[in-house]
Amino acid sequence: MEQETAAPDWRSRLAALWAEGIPLATAMEVEIGRLDEEMLVLVAPLAPNRNHMGTAFGGSLQGIAILAGWGVTLMAAPQGAQHVIIRNAQMRFIEPVSGEIRAEAEMPSPGAVAAFRTTLARQGHARLTVPVVIRGPAESVAARFVGEFVAFVASVNSPG
Amino acid sequence: MEQETAAPDWRSRLAALWAEGIPLATAMEVEIGRLDEEMLVLVAPLAPNRNHMGTAFGGSLQGIAILAGWGVTLMAAPQGAQHVIIRNAQMRFIEPVSGEIRAEAEMPSPGAVAAFRTTLARQGHARLTVPVVIRGPAESVAARFVGEFVAFVASVNSPG
Repeated sequence: MEQETAAPDWRSRLAALWAEGIPLATAMEVEIGRLDEEMLVLVAPLAPNRNHMGTAFGGSLQGIAILAGWGVTLMAAPQGAQHVIIRNAQMRFIEPVSGEIRAEAEMPSPGAVAAFRTTLARQGHARLTVPVVIRGPAESVAARFVGEFVAFVASVNSPG
Repeated sequence: MEQETAAPDWRSRLAALWAEGIPLATAMEVEIGRLDEEMLVLVAPLAPNRNHMGTAFGGSLQGIAILAGWGVTLMAAPQGAQHVIIRNAQMRFIEPVSGEIRAEAEMPSPGAVAAFRTTLARQGHARLTVPVVIRGPAESVAARFVGEFVAFVASVNSPG
């Protein structure tokens, strides 16, 4: 169970969830660039995410950061908790992105995951704060996002 | 000049800017619901903006809020300042949106517009903080956004 965040089927599960359930993820052409014990990295091309200045639209940077933070929270929760929502988001836009967008979210530490799961089991819901770094093709930090996500234990009859 | 925020051509100018320059605005099917001296209200249907739970995707709420705040900042700036970027964004998600999304941004007060324009003329750039309220079909507040936008005086040779 503790290894499930690294389970290879998360890659296809997340991709399927976004492809089937979130049309904007498809419109943004978001793909999973890396998923392992350490990180979830999402990538998206500039073209569908550009603004009238030819750089990445702020709403696209927010969208990809939310998908990354949401994915990390879902993976940190045990299998039963399928319901994850965003509660708060903060983003600082540092420099324009003029090429492929990368959103990098580190997996929470084992201690943070354990505390999150204990609270979830005890209270039926638990909060996880996930920082996401946005980089453009130059590799420098283009934006910094911090999202506060809440997971809920899905009820037995939940369709999710 | 002081009346330009209410000029009827802003409606078609903003719509054209988004339709031509920001593919995600088209994907989100964002439309201007109201634009007058008091408010800019953007609306978007749920279908292209839904998540796997059947409510609005957080990234869509961010995207529509950014377009609203950006539009207000552009209209508050004098005609010469075509270049507006977002610097910081904060959003609190209060309840899910299960139908049409509305993003309501109040026009800044005449005093705030005057100060913004004075700074812009003096420094070549100026900051405007724009709160945006997101409502769903129930009219209650679903999310609160605060964006910090920066306008720059476009150079004479700017293509924008």
